[in-house]
Amino acid sequence: MKHNEIPYKIYLEENEMPKSWYNVRADMKNKPAPLLNPATHEPVTEEELCNVFCKELVEQELNDRDAYIAIPQEIQDFYKMYRPAPLVRAYCLEKKLGTPAKIYYKFEGNNTSGSHKLNSAIAQAYYAKKQGLKGVTTETGAGQWGTALSMACSYFDLDCKVFMVKVSYEQKPFRREVMRTYGASVTPSPSDTTEVGRAILEKFPGTTGSLGCAISEAVEAAVSNDGYRYVLGSVLNQVLLHQTIIGLETKAALDKYHIKPDIIIGCAGGGSNLGGLISPFMGEKLRGEADYRFIAVEPASCPSFTRGRFAYDFCDTGAVCPLAKMYTLGSQFIPSANHAGGLRYHGMSPILSQLYADGLIEARAEEQTSVFKAAEQFARVEGILPAPESSHAIKAAIDEAMRCKETGEEKTIVFGLTGTGYFDMVAYEKFHNGEMKDYIPTEEDLQAGFEAMPKFE
Amino acid sequence: MKHNEIPYKIYLEENEMPKSWYNVRADMKNKPAPLLNPATHEPVTEEELCNVFCKELVEQELNDRDAYIAIPQEIQDFYKMYRPAPLVRAYCLEKKLGTPAKIYYKFEGNNTSGSHKLNSAIAQAYYAKKQGLKGVTTETGAGQWGTALSMACSYFDLDCKVFMVKVSYEQKPFRREVMRTYGASVTPSPSDTTEVGRAILEKFPGTTGSLGCAISEAVEAAVSNDGYRYVLGSVLNQVLLHQTIIGLETKAALDKYHIKPDIIIGCAGGGSNLGGLISPFMGEKLRGEADYRFIAVEPASCPSFTRGRFAYDFCDTGAVCPLAKMYTLGSQFIPSANHAGGLRYHGMSPILSQLYADGLIEARAEEQTSVFKAAEQFARVEGILPAPESSHAIKAAIDEAMRCKETGEEKTIVFGLTGTGYFDMVAYEKFHNGEMKDYIPTEEDLQAGFEAMPKFE
Repeated sequence: MKHNEIPYKIYLEENEMPKSWYNVRADMKNKPAPLLNPATHEPVTEEELCNVFCKELVEQELNDRDAYIAIPQEIQDFYKMYRPAPLVRAYCLEKKLGTPAKIYYKFEGNNTSGSHKLNSAIAQAYYAKKQGLKGVTTETGAGQWGTALSMACSYFDLDCKVFMVKVSYEQKPFRREVMRTYGASVTPSPSDTTEVGRAILEKFPGTTGSLGCAISEAVEAAVSNDGYRYVLGSVLNQVLLHQTIIGLETKAALDKYHIKPDIIIGCAGGGSNLGGLISPFMGEKLRGEADYRFIAVEPASCPSFTRGRFAYDFCDTGAVCPLAKMYTLGSQFIPSANHAGGLRYHGMSPILSQLYADGLIEARAEEQTSVFKAAEQFARVEGILPAPESSHAIKAAIDEAMRCKETGEEKTIVFGLTGTGYFDMVAYEKFHNGEMKDYIPTEEDLQAGFEAMPKFE
Repeated sequence: MKHNEIPYKIYLEENEMPKSWYNVRADMKNKPAPLLNPATHEPVTEEELCNVFCKELVEQELNDRDAYIAIPQEIQDFYKMYRPAPLVRAYCLEKKLGTPAKIYYKFEGNNTSGSHKLNSAIAQAYYAKKQGLKGVTTETGAGQWGTALSMACSYFDLDCKVFMVKVSYEQKPFRREVMRTYGASVTPSPSDTTEVGRAILEKFPGTTGSLGCAISEAVEAAVSNDGYRYVLGSVLNQVLLHQTIIGLETKAALDKYHIKPDIIIGCAGGGSNLGGLISPFMGEKLRGEADYRFIAVEPASCPSFTRGRFAYDFCDTGAVCPLAKMYTLGSQFIPSANHAGGLRYHGMSPILSQLYADGLIEARAEEQTSVFKAAEQFARVEGILPAPESSHAIKAAIDEAMRCKETGEEKTIVFGLTGTGYFDMVAYEKFHNGEMKDYIPTEEDLQAGFEAMPKFE
C-alpha cells in the first residue's frame, strides 16, 4: 500500500486488540539483574515482595521466561473503554517540516488520566481486587499516575490512598480534584499519618516534600494497613509488561498497512512508556527477525541514561524498597527546581537499562526550552497539546525528520505521544513569557548523587 | 445485529465521514425568522452582514433552501486530524445503573479545545482565509470557543484576536495559555483597545467584564480593522450547520449497526451542540420518515427554553449585533455568579427556537448540584471527566435510563458528550467540598430581563 493511502488515524477493531501482554525478558539473552533486599543485599524472594505488592504482580515481576502473559478478560474490557489508542499519521507535521520522512505517533492521551499510565493502573487494581484486598497505596508527583490509579480503583471499587508531594498538592490543585472525583483520598506528603512522614516533618519542618519521601510513606501505609498493598507507576518489570499494550497495538496497526518503521522513539523517565512502546519491536530485533533503531529521549536535567551509572541503587529516598540494577543518578539526586518537563526519576527501568547496556537502544538528552519549542510546533499543526514529557519524543522525532530532509531519505519514524499537557499550563506559561531556563547538572552535582549510592557488589 | 455485539466504541472509517453538512432549515416548514437590523428593525441584508462576517458564512447564514452544503476538502482534511469522534456504547454506565436501556454517547472532547467547538471554528477560519482576510476577532468566556478558534487560526496561519471576559482571564489562566500556545492574542475585556471597552471602563472602573461586553469589543475590533471579520461560536445558523458533522457521524455510526434511537439528548446553551447532534434526525422527523424524542437540557439558572420568551431580542449586551427571534431571557440577563455549569447565554439558536415553538423538541432545566452528581457518577464508570455543560445531557440520560428501569423498557438513548472538564476543576472542587449552591431565578429576576428587551413587532 502506498503511504498516501494511509488514513490520518489507524484504529484497530476491537477484535484486533491484543489479548496478551508481551514479556520482552523472555527473549533477552542478558536478563535484567534481580532486585535485591535492601538489608541483606540478597535477591528478594517472592515472599518478601508479596508483603509489599500483590501476589500475581510479584509473579509477573519475577517472570523472565514466558513471552506472552494473557490479559484477563476484565482488563481487556476496561481497555475497550478508552482503547484502542489511535496510531496517527502526522501528515500536517510532515508538511510543515517539508520532510520526506513519514511520521507516526501513538497517542495515549485520550483518557481522563491524560496519559498511558492507565494501562498499568487498571492491571494493578484488577490484581489487587482479585486478591481480595481493600485497597492500594501509591505516591504521585504532578499527579498523572495518581489520577490513573484513582480511575482504576474507582472502577473496581477499591480504596485508593495517594500520597502527593506537598508542593504539587498545593500548586496543582486540579489534579488533586480529579483524583477526588474518582473517590481517592489524597494526602500531602510528608504527612503526620506515617512514621516516616512524622520523622521527616520533625527533621525538616518546612519541607515541601519529594517523590522519594512520598514513596516511603506509601509503602509504610501499605504494609501497616491490613488488606492494602503498594503499587507503582513505572520502573518495575510488571509495569513495562502492562505497557506493552502500547507497542502491540502500534505493531498491529503498522502491520495492517504493511508499514515497517525505521526509527522508534520514546521519552524516558522511569521507562514505562518507552519500554511498552518498543518491547514488541525489540523482541523481533532480539530474535533476529527485524532491525530497528530505538531512541530514548530524556531531559538534560535528569540524564540517567546518558550520564548515569549502571549499578545497583535504591529505588526510593528512604531505602525501604528493594535495590535495582539500573542506570541511575543516585537516589538522592533531585533535578533542579526549574525543571518542568516531568521524567524526574533518578533511575531507569532495569529491563531498559540492560538493553541499553547491551547497545540495543540509543539515548539522548534534551534541554527543556527546546522541548517546549517542539511541543508548541507540534500543537500548532497536529492539534494536540502535548505533555512536556511526551514532547521529548516529539523533539527527537522532528530532529530525525529534519535529518531526512537533508539527506532526502524517506524514513518511517514512529514515536510515543504519551499524554496531554492540560495540567502543565504553568510550564507553558513560563515558556511563553521567556521565563523558562535550561539546567544541566554539573559534574559535581552528579558526583554527589553517585556518592550516596550503596557501596557493594 | 444484537445489541451485545456492538463494540464499546464505533469509529467510522475515513471514507465513511460526511462530505456535506446538513441544513435542517431546508426541511423546516416554518423557517426560523430572519435577523433584523438593530437600527431599522428591517431584515438584515447580505451586504450588511458582510461588514461583520465572512462572505461565504453570510451565504450559509441566510441559506434556508439547500439541504446539503458541501464541506470543502481543506476542512474535511482538518476534520480527519481529530475526527471521526467515537460513538460510545456506555456499557459500564448501563451496568452500574442496572437499566435495560441502551445508552450511547457521541464524544466530542478528543481534541485540545476539549469540545465540539472546533467543528465550526475550523470552518469559519477556512472561509476567512479563503476570503484573503488577515484575521478574525471573537469573544470567549471560560475559553472553550477561544481555544478552538486559536487552533483553527493557527492551522490556516490567520491572526486571531480573542477578547476574554476579564474575570475568566484572571481566574482561568490555563485556557489563556492554551490560546497563546496556538499564537492567539488574548485581551482581557473590557479593555482600552476599543471605544466600547473604554466607555465601559469609564462608567464601571472596577468591572470584571461580561460576555455581552466582550462581544461588543470583538465586533468593534473586526469592523474597525482592515482585513478582519468577527466570528461566533454558537447561536447562528452557520454554526449549527457546521456542527451537523456531529449528528451526521452519529447517524452513520448508528445506521452501520442498524440501531434506531428512541431518545436523543443534548445540552443547550446557544444551541450549537444540540442543533448539530439532532439536525439529521430532525430532518427525518420533519420529512415524516422516522420519529424521535429530542430533549434539550439547560441549566435551571439560565432557563431560556423553559422560562424564556420567544421574541426578537438583542444578541449582545451592547446591541450592535442583529436582532434574532429566539427564546430569550433578555440580553441584560446574567446568570447568578455561583453558576458554574456553562450554558450561560441569554438566548437560543433561532433554528432550535422555531423547532421548540413548533413542539418538535422537549426541554428541561436542571440544577447544577444534580448535574455535577451525574458528572461524577459518569466519570467513575465511563472514565471520562465530563465538562459541566455536557453533564446536563448526562443527567437527563441517566434519568431516562432509570425510567426505563422502572418500566422495563429497552429504549435506546443517545446523548451528546460535548467535551471534557479539565479546565473546570474549580467547580468540581466546590462540588466536592459541598460549597456548590443551586440557583433558580425568581419571577422578578426574569421580569427585569424581559423588560429590557426591544419593544416592537
